[in-house]
Amino acid sequence: MSFQAATDEFAKRKKTDLTHRINQAMGAELADLVIKNVSLLNVVTGTIDISDVAITGNTIVGTYGTYHGRKEIDGTGLTAVPGFINTHLHVESAKITPDQYDRLALPHGTTTAICDPHEMANVLGVPAIEYFFKSAKNTLMDLMVQLSSCVPATMLETSGARIDAEELAKLRNHPKTIGPAEFMDIGGVLGKEDRALDKLVAFQDGMIDGHLPGITGFALNAMLACGILNDHESTMLAEAQEKLRKGVQILIREGTICKDLGVLWPLINERTSPFFSFCTDDRSPLEIVREGEIDHMIRTAIRFGADPKDVYRVASWSAAQSFGLHRDTEKWQKRGLIAPGYKADIVLLNDFQNCTINSVIKNGKVVTEESFKARPHVEPIGYNSIKIRKMLPDDFKIPAGEPGEIQDVIGLIPGKLVTEHLRLSVPEKDGFLVPDASNDLLRIAVIERHGKNGNIATGFVKGFGFTSGAIASSVGHDSHNLIVVGASEEDMALAVNTIRANQGGYAVVKDGQVLGSLALPVAGLMSDKPFEALHDEAKALRDAAKGIGSSMEDPTMMLAFLPLCVIPNLKLTDFGPVRFVAGQDSGPVLLKDQRGSRPSALVA
Amino acid sequence: MSFQAATDEFAKRKKTDLTHRINQAMGAELADLVIKNVSLLNVVTGTIDISDVAITGNTIVGTYGTYHGRKEIDGTGLTAVPGFINTHLHVESAKITPDQYDRLALPHGTTTAICDPHEMANVLGVPAIEYFFKSAKNTLMDLMVQLSSCVPATMLETSGARIDAEELAKLRNHPKTIGPAEFMDIGGVLGKEDRALDKLVAFQDGMIDGHLPGITGFALNAMLACGILNDHESTMLAEAQEKLRKGVQILIREGTICKDLGVLWPLINERTSPFFSFCTDDRSPLEIVREGEIDHMIRTAIRFGADPKDVYRVASWSAAQSFGLHRDTEKWQKRGLIAPGYKADIVLLNDFQNCTINSVIKNGKVVTEESFKARPHVEPIGYNSIKIRKMLPDDFKIPAGEPGEIQDVIGLIPGKLVTEHLRLSVPEKDGFLVPDASNDLLRIAVIERHGKNGNIATGFVKGFGFTSGAIASSVGHDSHNLIVVGASEEDMALAVNTIRANQGGYAVVKDGQVLGSLALPVAGLMSDKPFEALHDEAKALRDAAKGIGSSMEDPTMMLAFLPLCVIPNLKLTDFGPVRFVAGQDSGPVLLKDQRGSRPSALVA
Repeated sequence: MSFQAATDEFAKRKKTDLTHRINQAMGAELADLVIKNVSLLNVVTGTIDISDVAITGNTIVGTYGTYHGRKEIDGTGLTAVPGFINTHLHVESAKITPDQYDRLALPHGTTTAICDPHEMANVLGVPAIEYFFKSAKNTLMDLMVQLSSCVPATMLETSGARIDAEELAKLRNHPKTIGPAEFMDIGGVLGKEDRALDKLVAFQDGMIDGHLPGITGFALNAMLACGILNDHESTMLAEAQEKLRKGVQILIREGTICKDLGVLWPLINERTSPFFSFCTDDRSPLEIVREGEIDHMIRTAIRFGADPKDVYRVASWSAAQSFGLHRDTEKWQKRGLIAPGYKADIVLLNDFQNCTINSVIKNGKVVTEESFKARPHVEPIGYNSIKIRKMLPDDFKIPAGEPGEIQDVIGLIPGKLVTEHLRLSVPEKDGFLVPDASNDLLRIAVIERHGKNGNIATGFVKGFGFTSGAIASSVGHDSHNLIVVGASEEDMALAVNTIRANQGGYAVVKDGQVLGSLALPVAGLMSDKPFEALHDEAKALRDAAKGIGSSMEDPTMMLAFLPLCVIPNLKLTDFGPVRFVAGQDSGPVLLKDQRGSRPSALVA
Repeated sequence: MSFQAATDEFAKRKKTDLTHRINQAMGAELADLVIKNVSLLNVVTGTIDISDVAITGNTIVGTYGTYHGRKEIDGTGLTAVPGFINTHLHVESAKITPDQYDRLALPHGTTTAICDPHEMANVLGVPAIEYFFKSAKNTLMDLMVQLSSCVPATMLETSGARIDAEELAKLRNHPKTIGPAEFMDIGGVLGKEDRALDKLVAFQDGMIDGHLPGITGFALNAMLACGILNDHESTMLAEAQEKLRKGVQILIREGTICKDLGVLWPLINERTSPFFSFCTDDRSPLEIVREGEIDHMIRTAIRFGADPKDVYRVASWSAAQSFGLHRDTEKWQKRGLIAPGYKADIVLLNDFQNCTINSVIKNGKVVTEESFKARPHVEPIGYNSIKIRKMLPDDFKIPAGEPGEIQDVIGLIPGKLVTEHLRLSVPEKDGFLVPDASNDLLRIAVIERHGKNGNIATGFVKGFGFTSGAIASSVGHDSHNLIVVGASEEDMALAVNTIRANQGGYAVVKDGQVLGSLALPVAGLMSDKPFEALHDEAKALRDAAKGIGSSMEDPTMMLAFLPLCVIPNLKLTDFGPVRFVAGQDSGPVLLKDQRGSRPSALVA
């Protein structure tokens, strides 16, 4: 703020605010809000001390003293801890809009969340980031919106949009962003390609989020030397240990498919606690509702055996300092401690060992259902994003090649995004390759849905465990083309056409009947309904998927990651099958270019 | 940096730099510099690990790997630790210019220093800050220049300049500043006076350094609630403990007069280490040369019993994170760790227990005497700042009042800035009050020297322990008027006139002879000579001061703080005697306004 600004209305209000802070801190004026007699878990000293906490406006003004307020909360028997920070997530994975994520996660104690609108941006481009900015202006929580840095994620798929360095750089000064989101284009960096280096150069003087799955040794050094600051992709203890030694801020992730806390928590101790934080990355709405969010990670870490003093520090101050949120800037007020001058983001706990939340104070106000109702409505964007013609069973037919030819088959590994690259012979019938449900061998197809080219790629997958029917999804990382798996072409076509009618989402079909569907009309990724409705629909969908005999807890979630070709070993994009062997391939490799090999799915 | 900038020459160089970083980190190209086989004291994990450290340009690009370089340093048997950060000092207290401070402190491992040009600013105003900016552009060390926030420090003295909120705000975007320097005007804040609140408002969205001596309870809460971030004035354990609990970043100080490390070091441990840093505040050149700087604090803390793993973290990463220097910004590159991506500021130690320095690497280059010689010369400013006429013995005469009247007398306490407020009867002779050297009662005078009004204030002081002669100084905190103490008016006049002839500095006089003098012609505060010459002159001066029989280790240093009326209990400014009783007075109180009571010292 310039001094000119300091003389204007805003500055006058600031001065009035300071005056109240001083008066209330001094006890010369009743505080706006006082939490009386609470057990303060001090993440600086590691002590638990009985204290009043006085709040003026959105700022803590007094601790370790006796205060009286115009409003008072009796904190007797409660423990106060600083609000939790989710350091990396894709809101889209919860299948709800940012305003519903706010309603869902804030009561779980997440007062600040750092999200990456990567999924929506792959469908819509910069307008998706702008939609998140607009939403973030109205959430009660502080939703920081990172700048999706790799749209598209690879050159081996058709995305709905591209965002180049110039467009990214234009967004950097927005008050709701910290910097570029997870920088996935490791091949681009190590190959010193312009598309990657231009982005790194544009953000050299800022914070750049990392994405370093299995990246170690020289490659890790090179990524860090370019300014990458953190990583949320560590899944192995030795991998995280190496990163820690090399100064990487480690974001421990507990998503729906990737659950890393059980492996990594032993690294958290008194000395290392400043260098860790918690994140959820991709977490399903069902799990958030059932288990919680960062609060779930806290109670899980403590149950595993981590010291609560370290765990609460990791969830608050450490996360804040990692992103510079522990200091006042032109963009944000400092947070991460219950201390005078800090943002009044406080979680009151009935039991700090189990992280059972009594209530949440955000910006000095107790969070209630009414506070959410008072937020302005932000109209979602990205309706009508499924731009395909009606599908026919023949669209999925695969002509047989040489007799007995061995095929590339995706082999699922339960609970992992990594797949096996199987080489199997596939049955033939009437000159076409056909699924063999009795051997758990199903047909898979990816259909470009952004109206760019109508590519249809097909292949086979093993491991879904159902014997008839089909499941389809418009969520398909990272380009979010349509993906469908099935035992029959007819059911596959019906499943895709159901999503087409719903303009996004999931469908489960069996024998010509739609057993269940979930509409995600916002960019084909998110519902526009309240999270409770979405939750019930998602539950029904999961039950429908069980109805076709899948042995998986949630086969739709697995489906969504089968086009994600930056993850080993075999995936399918709208270009065709893509191989990526870690430590062998320097990046994803298209095994068989299927483009143009069949009629396009474009609207006629 | 805008994207436009990202396409220009600078960005092209950045891209070339990134390319080299990647190649050298990958081992595909010889590194610019490699420290081979060194024991790396890792301040993240607290381990000591043998590793190579590869450096490209000014950036570390590889650790925990084997590297080869165009230049190599054999690190066998050496320990590498991150460069030290001095988080608060007044360069002027070393009596040398910033470029000489660079030469003096950098070889002691201080690769970053955060200074406050408060002394020079009180003489010259904004041009002093600009001189420091200009100097900082050319130092090898990173000299961050905080914006002196309280010029003048009080309304009860005549300073050479004033700096208001508007002027301060204009300087905030300078690349060499972090924010306002120690905010001393506690009375102004608690009294909600515009002069203080305007400054706080102008910097609400930034980092504001604190100055909180003995400030506890509600008053501490109020200061913190206004955004004060840190404090270097804690002298008592309980005081620092309270601040720590309240989230204050504690800058432990080891100056020449104030030595707080011995009291505060027990607070440093594995849990609290992120919240501490080291600073020197006011440290004499003699001590820096004899004992060192932050390196001295490190070895002293370890000798006291602190864990070296904590101590080296405090001296580097903790200090960096405290000021946000641990993250890349538009103003600076991240520092505080020996890790890829961080600024290559590294201290190589022969022995980490004793912090014996083998060599210092700053921005990827080994520091040598030649590297200092290559710096551009910055011409000092502030010559001819002693604007007084020649003094006469009669100028110091004090007419007696009522017979037997009790006088306010400053009582010195060895090793402290705090004084006693004595009430004594003073001998009379010929209608004037006179010193009584046999009872250690000397005359003291302060002479306004900025050419504003020529005020002369006089009084008595007890505790210097000399029986004849006089000592004078143009260093007199914080307004730096001339201050003189003596047993005779003649010697006092000669001492002041010697300083007048030297245009600043110190003089020791006895029986009409100048026993020693030290010229400080730069704003009357600093020498323009190399630190070695200044050091020898300062030593000679100290010996001269001993020659008049003072029992003090360095009476000139004590003299300089006698006008500092923000410190209890009785001081003397050019207005007259000023009382400040902590916990009783809300600010300094002028006991007797002497302005206009005698002929002015202005140049005729």
